[in-house]
Amino acid sequence: MKIVALAGGVGGAKMVFGLAKAHAALDLTVVVNTGDDFDHLGMRICPDIDTICYTLAGLANPDTGWGRFDESWNFITELKALGGDDWFRIGDKDLATHVERTNRLNNGQPLSKIVKDFCDRWNVKQHVLPMSDQKVATIVCTTNNGELPFQDYFVKKKCEPAIKSFRFDGINNADPAPGVIDSIEQADVIVICPSNPWVSIDPILNISKILPYLRQKTIIAISPIVDGKSIKGPAAKMYSELGIQPSALAVAKHYKKLIKAIVIDDQDISLADDITRLGIISFNTNIVMKTSEDKLNLGKDVLNFIDRIIR
Amino acid sequence: MKIVALAGGVGGAKMVFGLAKAHAALDLTVVVNTGDDFDHLGMRICPDIDTICYTLAGLANPDTGWGRFDESWNFITELKALGGDDWFRIGDKDLATHVERTNRLNNGQPLSKIVKDFCDRWNVKQHVLPMSDQKVATIVCTTNNGELPFQDYFVKKKCEPAIKSFRFDGINNADPAPGVIDSIEQADVIVICPSNPWVSIDPILNISKILPYLRQKTIIAISPIVDGKSIKGPAAKMYSELGIQPSALAVAKHYKKLIKAIVIDDQDISLADDITRLGIISFNTNIVMKTSEDKLNLGKDVLNFIDRIIR
Repeated sequence: MKIVALAGGVGGAKMVFGLAKAHAALDLTVVVNTGDDFDHLGMRICPDIDTICYTLAGLANPDTGWGRFDESWNFITELKALGGDDWFRIGDKDLATHVERTNRLNNGQPLSKIVKDFCDRWNVKQHVLPMSDQKVATIVCTTNNGELPFQDYFVKKKCEPAIKSFRFDGINNADPAPGVIDSIEQADVIVICPSNPWVSIDPILNISKILPYLRQKTIIAISPIVDGKSIKGPAAKMYSELGIQPSALAVAKHYKKLIKAIVIDDQDISLADDITRLGIISFNTNIVMKTSEDKLNLGKDVLNFIDRIIR
Repeated sequence: MKIVALAGGVGGAKMVFGLAKAHAALDLTVVVNTGDDFDHLGMRICPDIDTICYTLAGLANPDTGWGRFDESWNFITELKALGGDDWFRIGDKDLATHVERTNRLNNGQPLSKIVKDFCDRWNVKQHVLPMSDQKVATIVCTTNNGELPFQDYFVKKKCEPAIKSFRFDGINNADPAPGVIDSIEQADVIVICPSNPWVSIDPILNISKILPYLRQKTIIAISPIVDGKSIKGPAAKMYSELGIQPSALAVAKHYKKLIKAIVIDDQDISLADDITRLGIISFNTNIVMKTSEDKLNLGKDVLNFIDRIIR
């Protein structure tokens, strides 16, 4: 079976890890949000891509969900001693990724080619594709802090400012990266990972050349919201600030025109009827992935649900 | 007493460390070669300045002479795994210097200001000045390998190609960094450190606005050559390839128009008469600095020799 997963960072990484573990021979392509990418200390940093790649490579830090395991922090400590910007924590191993990627980008290599080569070197068996080789920048429009580049909002301001809308700078000039359209066309099913709908998945959906191909496919989403709260990150807070009650139902409505099914948590079983009324199939299981076993189990469950909707 | 030292990397660092230890209240300014500076992995790297600063700050690696002590190498290991250029060894702590410097340079700060701020943060009591804020690039012209940027010759090719001449790209547009001329004018004596005359000291002497001020001063050099061999690096090899017998006498001749005195090693006492015949005062002591005590002792000796020539 060929699956294309649309993913952001930590939630997406857990899901694709689970899918990969659940079925070793699975032909899995991950199309990753690059709206969070930014320039920092002269380097191009791609947080979601790195989290996905590190996770699939078995290099990720299981405690944080981002960065490398067995990491050292000598660079950032010394950078701070020199008065440098240390709000974005970069470990010594992680730094090599940013420096080498930036160097290659400056030499004219497209991001997708760099990601492919890094994945080959890290023995990642799945295909990881940035949504685009062109720069897209997610801008968070807040009620009291003006417009903030995503990492300023997310890391520097710890998601505290109330949001009112989002903008994806550069999205109109962003073409799908090589391989994105082909992999979608060849996919048996598209999985929308339990990533933030507003800032992780919407950038991908807003690339105008991608959406028509997705519309021809069977799509299943996994809710990033359980019992009205985000599993991680600001998704639920964003729904509230936008005047929408955060819930797996709100997520189903978010993707209503696109998805055939949604996977919600057992705790949200009471929402199943409302989801069904939207014309969306609702599956439920434990979708909170804390351990490797949780990820594997959800991977297996999602593959079973997929079997049920595409046969 | 006010001293201005002209210095390259390791030999210069040992000498200024010795001078600083020999006399805590010494007003010492180090004017450092920047001809070795280069762009690498998107970063501006200033090897001589860093070696001088790390040494004066007590942060240097005593085994290598360059880089930081108690260093980790996770960045470069991971960079290599990604197929990155690892021929120039950069430690994790050292990397913070390059990243922060590059970031500030890209934001328009002049190198001299950055070095000053780094030195303040590292509690360096001496004044460290790059010879110029403009880029100068030492080019090594070889007999069989064409023209090589200095670090390609020095690190990548391990000084193996035979040289025939040197060029200092950008030298005609290089102004002395702020403070260089003032410190020379106010100095009681100029010390030419036991650095490579061709590629560490000559770039400084070739900045046309510096030389006239040096000519008005009492200058003492310390030979980087002992018993016909370089203490470290390719100086002796360069003399040979240029058809000059490498010796402390050759160094004295190199600086003949500039220096009042030269400090040679006890092993080279037989050269003293020939040096005297050049009109240059010759002092001898142990100039091979292996231990901290060696550096301190040579520092004390040089201060004594200075006393004898400026009184």
